[in-house]
Amino acid sequence: MGEFDLIERYFKRPAKRAALGVGDDCALLQPRPGTQLAISSDMLVEGRHFLSTVDPFKLGHKALAVNLSDLAACGAQPLAFTLALALPQADDAWLAPFSRGLLALADLHGCELIGGDTTQGPLNICITVFGEVPVVQGRSQALLRSGAQAGDDLYVSGTVGDARLALEVFRGTLSVPESVFETARSRLEAPTPRVALGLALRGIATAAIDVSDGLLGDLGHVLKQSGVGATVNTDSAITLIAARAHCTCGTGQFGTEILPDQWLAWALAGGDDYELLFTAPPSARTLVALAAQISQTRVTCIGQIEATPGLRLVDDQAKPLANRWHAFDHFA
Amino acid sequence: MGEFDLIERYFKRPAKRAALGVGDDCALLQPRPGTQLAISSDMLVEGRHFLSTVDPFKLGHKALAVNLSDLAACGAQPLAFTLALALPQADDAWLAPFSRGLLALADLHGCELIGGDTTQGPLNICITVFGEVPVVQGRSQALLRSGAQAGDDLYVSGTVGDARLALEVFRGTLSVPESVFETARSRLEAPTPRVALGLALRGIATAAIDVSDGLLGDLGHVLKQSGVGATVNTDSAITLIAARAHCTCGTGQFGTEILPDQWLAWALAGGDDYELLFTAPPSARTLVALAAQISQTRVTCIGQIEATPGLRLVDDQAKPLANRWHAFDHFA
Repeated sequence: MGEFDLIERYFKRPAKRAALGVGDDCALLQPRPGTQLAISSDMLVEGRHFLSTVDPFKLGHKALAVNLSDLAACGAQPLAFTLALALPQADDAWLAPFSRGLLALADLHGCELIGGDTTQGPLNICITVFGEVPVVQGRSQALLRSGAQAGDDLYVSGTVGDARLALEVFRGTLSVPESVFETARSRLEAPTPRVALGLALRGIATAAIDVSDGLLGDLGHVLKQSGVGATVNTDSAITLIAARAHCTCGTGQFGTEILPDQWLAWALAGGDDYELLFTAPPSARTLVALAAQISQTRVTCIGQIEATPGLRLVDDQAKPLANRWHAFDHFA
Repeated sequence: MGEFDLIERYFKRPAKRAALGVGDDCALLQPRPGTQLAISSDMLVEGRHFLSTVDPFKLGHKALAVNLSDLAACGAQPLAFTLALALPQADDAWLAPFSRGLLALADLHGCELIGGDTTQGPLNICITVFGEVPVVQGRSQALLRSGAQAGDDLYVSGTVGDARLALEVFRGTLSVPESVFETARSRLEAPTPRVALGLALRGIATAAIDVSDGLLGDLGHVLKQSGVGATVNTDSAITLIAARAHCTCGTGQFGTEILPDQWLAWALAGGDDYELLFTAPPSARTLVALAAQISQTRVTCIGQIEATPGLRLVDDQAKPLANRWHAFDHFA
């Protein structure tokens, strides 16, 4: 199978929304009047972002999901994406499920594959995604990291920490019952981009970011870019781990004992969560609850934004905790 | 040096034209009314698209140049690009010249770095580039592969074949004098994207493509998508090799003898040329010459488009030649 057969067989479909899709030197997108294009790129490398043994269908899903998550964090409506793919060889047994997983999620969000590149090389998946954001009276409706205000509530969508738990099981540092592992594994391998929530939060949230490198690390970007500080309730944060509902912690029943501190580390700095961390004023609590309901997405308040710079951690009794958690850094 | 330091130090600059640049979940681009966005992605892999010994400054230049070449082939004005970079390690000695080469070419074309991704992994450079194409009375001014008409002249810009000659020298299959090698090497390592020519050809060329996989192979895409055939004069094509001016061929004076057939193979199927192949009606010859002059780019007529499908090769005496040349294919 040659390069052009490969594109033809797995990735070329007629353009529906784009002015021109796959097959020329460029694709052409015609943004609607009164809109901006939101653009984001994410690259996934074997051994770094996924294990070589991962199901290619789930990998196709995840490669697009992590990009859609960036659109969600801006409150952008997905439009289209490009796919650049380096492959060791053109292997039908891999390409067929990979493209199915990728295009199934694309179809779910009306997000069209409009172009890209294929080459031989160590497995590397690079997606650039395009979304639409309205501009109302000259003002972009995009959710940015820089808009958090002192007094705002701090929210997280869905669950965090599970992807890291699953990774530790894959790494062999942890052994857990099947039901715990499967809950966590699906969060690692097939995250759900919070696109509907991002759209519902336009005009409500003051700031938003997608949680990919760990909750506290990504919160740090919001605090820095907004010029504010925050207090996070760690007892709220620890409840965000889905797999934790399946077990009693600290009892040693998994062979490897999971201490509360370990759960907390996964929740606060696990990474690979692809949830939305966002802020909104207390006056918007009803609207936030409505946005959660419309988008059928769980939303949890885990703290408050404050004028005093810095990040403070407290438990339910308002007792301060030291911050010993670091965000994931590819080169640290 | 961590991931965010790396971005801050080498790649983050204030946005000038983009509504929002590097540093949020997405970048924001606001296309001007009456325009379309042209989008293209190209991925460069070490050992496949460049040698590990290449000067990082030139690699930075080339990584963007091959993408700008796609915009040129659509007649698009460069606007912005994203960069996704997998690096074995964050090495200042490599990143500093790489980013300088990249951003120097970006500045030359007013093309702004608005976002991307950095990760650890086998060296891989993935750029997605954005350009602007006017839409006049509901009609896109983009140059497409599908517009060639029977009777059109067939043109190539600049020179072709030199990149392949240089690659053969690097591979050790060929030895040539220093002056020949340097001419060819600069074409391999620092190609010039024909952006100005592409812009000047809007409304004049009927079809265009950038020559990256070999002249005849890329011509094949135009013929297929336009539903036409062509005759190419191989004696015209062989004159397109810049390095050939520096030597007498077929005399064996380089240690390895370069036969006319070898020169022809490089011109017709060398690859890595990043020139424009385009078509225009004979009535537009003066306008094509003017576009070449305005853009200070050499343009050579190498054949004609015909209604009869297929590709025919002839020499100056109209004697037919068999087509024995294949385009580069990453998976063939």
